[in-house]
Amino acid sequence: MSVYQRLLQIQQKKQTRLCVGLDPFPGRLPKGVPRDVAFFLLEIFEATLPYTCAYKFNIAFFERMGSDGFHMLEYLLQVIYEETAGDERPILIADAKRSDVPHSAMIYASTYLDIFPFDAVTVNPLLGIDSIQPFLKFSNGLVFLLAVTSNPGASDFLLAPCGDRPLFERIVEKTATIASHERIGYVVGATHPEIFRSLRSAYPSHFFLVPGIGAQGGDMTQLRQANQNRPALFTVSRSILYASLSEDFAKAARRQAEKFQQESW
Amino acid sequence: MSVYQRLLQIQQKKQTRLCVGLDPFPGRLPKGVPRDVAFFLLEIFEATLPYTCAYKFNIAFFERMGSDGFHMLEYLLQVIYEETAGDERPILIADAKRSDVPHSAMIYASTYLDIFPFDAVTVNPLLGIDSIQPFLKFSNGLVFLLAVTSNPGASDFLLAPCGDRPLFERIVEKTATIASHERIGYVVGATHPEIFRSLRSAYPSHFFLVPGIGAQGGDMTQLRQANQNRPALFTVSRSILYASLSEDFAKAARRQAEKFQQESW
Repeated sequence: MSVYQRLLQIQQKKQTRLCVGLDPFPGRLPKGVPRDVAFFLLEIFEATLPYTCAYKFNIAFFERMGSDGFHMLEYLLQVIYEETAGDERPILIADAKRSDVPHSAMIYASTYLDIFPFDAVTVNPLLGIDSIQPFLKFSNGLVFLLAVTSNPGASDFLLAPCGDRPLFERIVEKTATIASHERIGYVVGATHPEIFRSLRSAYPSHFFLVPGIGAQGGDMTQLRQANQNRPALFTVSRSILYASLSEDFAKAARRQAEKFQQESW
Repeated sequence: MSVYQRLLQIQQKKQTRLCVGLDPFPGRLPKGVPRDVAFFLLEIFEATLPYTCAYKFNIAFFERMGSDGFHMLEYLLQVIYEETAGDERPILIADAKRSDVPHSAMIYASTYLDIFPFDAVTVNPLLGIDSIQPFLKFSNGLVFLLAVTSNPGASDFLLAPCGDRPLFERIVEKTATIASHERIGYVVGATHPEIFRSLRSAYPSHFFLVPGIGAQGGDMTQLRQANQNRPALFTVSRSILYASLSEDFAKAARRQAEKFQQESW
């Protein structure tokens, strides 16, 4: 079964489109988990799993810890694979936003879709189709291309007019046909609800990965309405991870995840 | 002294614009260095140092080895810092091509310009000015933005018309003024000599990092002539690293580096 189909099935079963973003910052851990980032993330994972169909690992935060961070990533994936199986295992996304010329893109692709057993990876499409294709060589991978990001700077290039339409439209149009919609999805930031709406109606079958909800200002209820039950993942990171900075952090994360799950379905 | 000034000084002293690209692939090591990538890279480093002003670490290849790869990166940087000092130390570039929204871009920036003691980092500019600015917060860092990459896919977006000019021109124009030319440089692929020529005359003071020489088909002599002694780094990777796959790999790499050094100056 493709990751696309598995994700739809998990969503239906758990009635959720919530994806929890894991952005662990050692200096920001709640009390009672001094410096033990792996323990913190596993507590968050267990507390939020009933309400969550996918986890998005922000690789920047692991990389920042150097070899320790990658060791932690290896450990976390191993624990998740040991503790969850089949339908119970959520979709695991490497939010790496990698890009390189084909020879090196192949190395990134094998890292995140083969060596590390992620189900999906985010990719920056700027370098063109041949830089994206290596990520499509792994039959089980779902590749999320950056289309519209949630930061104000998106207006510099992605939203700026590029001939008769904005660059992001050109990117989506040119990439949507290089593989089945079950293999390619798009990152569409929650801070641009009108764009989300128009892309949604133009591309009803592609999975949209939607970051920027919560701390970054995107509104889940509004997005759910615009989405009209099409394939989407609504990502919440800091509002769940740091829902409480006291010892009750896991309980607080669970309450937040439950709230976002309800808003997402 | 800024990295920009230090790099000019090293180039003048050694009479070289050669930058050696380190793309270590464990399966492709020469005979006699079974699986010991760190040993291989240190041998290459020592053999090529007299002819080289900078080393470009392709992070993809280290990342592929997971925690072992990052441990190796930490080890290599430590050895290089121990064995070279002041003017003797070449410029160390993290070829990471990272990009993310500001909050996460800051994490990548601190990783590659602070935690890992690189002098420079390559950055994908697609997400806009606010995604680049975190990389400019580190006073010693030189930030190379992708402008024109050496792969055929560059024609899909970077070289494609975007209103009245190609996207890469818009990227360079919009980013060239956000900091001094001593802080920002551009990646300009060797496979586009005409574009190199026109960008060079429009931006005579910015450092250009030029990959794609050798294995990818770019011609060093032609580029040196087009460059007219302006600030540039000509990067050669596979043609030096894998100059020989026998036990004489270091000697072969040294000969190739000497040849490219002469062509580069």
